[in-house]
Amino acid sequence: MATVTVYGPPISTAVSRVLTCLLEKDVPFQLAAVDMAKGQHRSPDFLKLQPFGKVPAFKDENTSLFESRAICRYICDKYADQGYKGLYGRGLLDRARIDQWLEAESQNFEPPSLVLVFQLAFAPRMGVKQDSKVIEVNERKLAKVLDVYEQRLGESRFLAGDEFTLADLSHLPNGHHLANRENLIKSRKNVGRWWEEISSRPSWKKVVEMQSAPVS
Amino acid sequence: MATVTVYGPPISTAVSRVLTCLLEKDVPFQLAAVDMAKGQHRSPDFLKLQPFGKVPAFKDENTSLFESRAICRYICDKYADQGYKGLYGRGLLDRARIDQWLEAESQNFEPPSLVLVFQLAFAPRMGVKQDSKVIEVNERKLAKVLDVYEQRLGESRFLAGDEFTLADLSHLPNGHHLANRENLIKSRKNVGRWWEEISSRPSWKKVVEMQSAPVS
Ligand SMILES: N[C@@H](CCC(=O)N[C@@H](CS)C(=O)NCC(=O)O)C(=O)O
Ligand SMILES: N[C@@H](CCC(=O)N[C@@H](CS)C(=O)NCC(=O)O)C(=O)O
Repeated sequence: MATVTVYGPPISTAVSRVLTCLLEKDVPFQLAAVDMAKGQHRSPDFLKLQPFGKVPAFKDENTSLFESRAICRYICDKYADQGYKGLYGRGLLDRARIDQWLEAESQNFEPPSLVLVFQLAFAPRMGVKQDSKVIEVNERKLAKVLDVYEQRLGESRFLAGDEFTLADLSHLPNGHHLANRENLIKSRKNVGRWWEEISSRPSWKKVVEMQSAPVS
Repeated sequence: MATVTVYGPPISTAVSRVLTCLLEKDVPFQLAAVDMAKGQHRSPDFLKLQPFGKVPAFKDENTSLFESRAICRYICDKYADQGYKGLYGRGLLDRARIDQWLEAESQNFEPPSLVLVFQLAFAPRMGVKQDSKVIEVNERKLAKVLDVYEQRLGESRFLAGDEFTLADLSHLPNGHHLANRENLIKSRKNVGRWWEEISSRPSWKKVVEMQSAPVS
């Protein structure tokens, strides 16, 4: 029986980051629905788990946690000996390099890409009008970040070194919605090669399936 | 002899985060000047250390690193047995809780506070006109974050528990410039009490001294 619960819909980028990590580490989990359209993420019960009112929240037999990247780090440490063992590196220097690129993701890649994910993927589905100026500004910001990645990925197979790690994984949720956009991922040789490889992980494919499953 | 070098001016908030951590862990270091007014942070040599062209960069006998929070994590792990030992917790669950609040800092506290630090502290010194609308919007965002902190700090002495940790430390650089602003830190009972305590750490006082020393 799963002793691990993830609160929030798989379609949320931050939720899907955690799900991918659990699948990589072969950790059985259950999903707890949070109906965001009904504002359940701001209910008193949910705020006890995630005081900022955002998904995901996470709970296991020992603790409850929020913030997707903190949850991922915890899963890697707690389940160090199972699933894919390289996910958070194999020693102090590996881990430092992974933390470095995980911060690069959260500080540099995420802000413009999150805006673009909303504008390009969610706004149309929600009947919200796209703002072409906002799209343009954020594509320019993201392009600069991807130029740095292009150089890095010319030197090493993955961001933190020769193995797939949490630093790469953390890019999947936003990257998924941007992969087919011109002039971003696929137009860059090394970034395109890297994207092909990381988005083919069975863990991620499974999460994409979960995202398109009908909401129960 | 210091084998640790931090690149960048102490007045930079991200640089000062790393310096505070080194002082807490009793790690001797040297500072390498990066003249940002002259654009040195965009020079080819500096970009080898920090490809996004931002300070700080960090180097020791084993590696070079960027991203202040990744550098701090590395320092805590590498020098686990020296200086203040509780900085990154004393076990898996401590660490998870610290990572959680460190993410809350970088994801929720930092974005509005960085804008405010620029508007309130740096713009006037640089002869840039303050934008009162931008200030208002970001004060409102930060106030919401601090309301969550107020509740959390009513339950525990520090963000991650009963001890001062990296999660608290990480708030010092931005908090310093906002502490005297009405309606943010000091107007909240628990946040004010917490701020008083964390900003009294000798490590931080030393960094504030370094920030006001004349540039050599
Ligand atoms: N930094 C948080 C971000 C969480 C987040 O922003 N979640 C979004 C969905 S992807 C959310 O809950 N938004 C609802 C809201 O902000 O009201 C994490 O990584 O867990
Ligand atoms: N996420 C980075 C942020 C670094 C950062 O933004 N540094 C600022 C100074 S506090 C900088 O170098 N700005 C110059 C620029 O962006 O051109 C970190 O924590 O190290």
